[in-house]
Amino acid sequence: MATRNLQWVLASRPEGAVKESDFRLVESELRPLEQGEFRIEVLFLGVAAVMRNYMLNAEKFERPLAIGDVMHGRGVGRIVESRNAEWRVGEIVHGKMGWQQYAIADGSAYFLMFKVRQRVAPVSTALGVLGLTGFTSYLGLVDVGAVRAGDRVLVSGAAGGVGSNVGQIARNLGADPVGIAGGAEKCALLVSRLGYRVAIDYRAGDVSPGIAAAFPDGIDVFFDNVGGEILDAGLAQLRRHARIVLCGAISQYVNGVERPRPLHNAYAIFKKMARMEAFFIYELSAHFERAEAQLAAWIAEGRLIYQEDILDGIQRMPEALLRLFAGRNVGKQLVRVAG
Amino acid sequence: MATRNLQWVLASRPEGAVKESDFRLVESELRPLEQGEFRIEVLFLGVAAVMRNYMLNAEKFERPLAIGDVMHGRGVGRIVESRNAEWRVGEIVHGKMGWQQYAIADGSAYFLMFKVRQRVAPVSTALGVLGLTGFTSYLGLVDVGAVRAGDRVLVSGAAGGVGSNVGQIARNLGADPVGIAGGAEKCALLVSRLGYRVAIDYRAGDVSPGIAAAFPDGIDVFFDNVGGEILDAGLAQLRRHARIVLCGAISQYVNGVERPRPLHNAYAIFKKMARMEAFFIYELSAHFERAEAQLAAWIAEGRLIYQEDILDGIQRMPEALLRLFAGRNVGKQLVRVAG
Repeated sequence: MATRNLQWVLASRPEGAVKESDFRLVESELRPLEQGEFRIEVLFLGVAAVMRNYMLNAEKFERPLAIGDVMHGRGVGRIVESRNAEWRVGEIVHGKMGWQQYAIADGSAYFLMFKVRQRVAPVSTALGVLGLTGFTSYLGLVDVGAVRAGDRVLVSGAAGGVGSNVGQIARNLGADPVGIAGGAEKCALLVSRLGYRVAIDYRAGDVSPGIAAAFPDGIDVFFDNVGGEILDAGLAQLRRHARIVLCGAISQYVNGVERPRPLHNAYAIFKKMARMEAFFIYELSAHFERAEAQLAAWIAEGRLIYQEDILDGIQRMPEALLRLFAGRNVGKQLVRVAG
Repeated sequence: MATRNLQWVLASRPEGAVKESDFRLVESELRPLEQGEFRIEVLFLGVAAVMRNYMLNAEKFERPLAIGDVMHGRGVGRIVESRNAEWRVGEIVHGKMGWQQYAIADGSAYFLMFKVRQRVAPVSTALGVLGLTGFTSYLGLVDVGAVRAGDRVLVSGAAGGVGSNVGQIARNLGADPVGIAGGAEKCALLVSRLGYRVAIDYRAGDVSPGIAAAFPDGIDVFFDNVGGEILDAGLAQLRRHARIVLCGAISQYVNGVERPRPLHNAYAIFKKMARMEAFFIYELSAHFERAEAQLAAWIAEGRLIYQEDILDGIQRMPEALLRLFAGRNVGKQLVRVAG
């Protein structure tokens, strides 16, 4: 049994872009477990843009990080030791693990720990299509967006982590997805691989004419990952009783600072008897098992594809995060820590 | 049995304000019923601001009116003759009757005909608190707004037909309503009679400070009857998981023409995991009986007050409509046609 741990700790707070030197790799002794705790051998860690905010203590839903603290991050791992009857040795779990080889958790809500039940795909997918990203895609579209067969669905950020699932899910449910993404390459991918009927390139100019052309009878469900102008453009084309799912608002951040712009077409929500709704995925955790089962079934049937970009070795965590910020990753950016 | 009918027909389309001479009272012969039809003796007719739009054929959900056609309008009446087994002589109904003494309807959806089941209040209330106005208030707050005991509720247009019910309903359900209305007199009424804890006078200036003061912990349900700036001001004060019920948008009309302004604070819907939803009351008709039963029970217990402003005689229909446009009515403006 291992006795030592490798951990990435915060060395300095970023000014401007995150640098590798903002982190420091340290080795420490594993401490014994207390009653109620269990130890996880981390198999994979993910990186996410929100991590810069963690480094700046700019996200209220995360514990503040002091200089020298282990970096926050979600991972998937195997329970290797347990003093908690609910969490048994050998189980595969995903949740808050931090940038380290061995994590300690307990049953409390803080760790947002969930058991991996599916056996059809690699456990790394618990950080992507079979984890929160996939659950956000599925539950956002099905439970919040109330999508039905035949619905015309618009998805912004359609080539992103969530968006690349949403088109395929919509298609699998008999709906008709149209995606918005940036650049010809991503747009080609939307149509060739990700289930979208049509792709609209926002880098090619105003998306409004493309939306109008793709939705002559209006939009039933608008799954919005970006907010701002693109949200506004979609609102102009709502069909009666449309549902607008506010999943993300990446466009409303400028260097991590929120700069929301006014919505000119929000009146359409009133006129079209529509509904606009945001959600917090952790609050839908009662439905994760259902989402995982459906997503895993589609993967097994070859009806849901996903892409991962895996670096090897915990040493490469800062590099992985920088790849993400540089947009060099193709698919979900992960680091293999063990296994 | 009557054989003659008095009817108000459209004489000319209004240019600017509606005038009495835009209508003409005519007398006609009652025609025999066809299979499936029933005849209603009209007891009360209501007037509504939307009627100017009917006269201009500016409302898509109503049948176009030709010059010489009987004016559209909702009424309550008694079935006096029937060739439809579902609609029996003696039943009291409300629905589209038109400005006349005797109306003919069938079971089709067009007439939006509903039976009056309650016996605690005068049948005239079927055009107000125990009709669509009351159902809109109750179902908008309870079914769309998902109000719960303890919720902090903001209501705009709080002295209006719907708003004057919503505060009392919120209070009866254990919620804490705050109303926005125009002028000191209406604001006093909100607090003294209509169940509101606090009233905010929009004529006294920007409502934002008043909203902030009345909701130190934020708004759970915002029942909005006016749209525009007041909607925007409320959005700035949402609590997590707030529900915004878009019931009306009277502020967004200028002389009957829509002039929607941008919403500057719509981003709060995303940030606060909120929901903004509009509804069409006719689509909730499956719930009218439940709404009527609850509202009637509160009236019987003295926990829901309402006000009517009744003119006598079908001759006074144009006068009633002009009173409404002049803001001279106190409570729901009605005309007693018979009974």
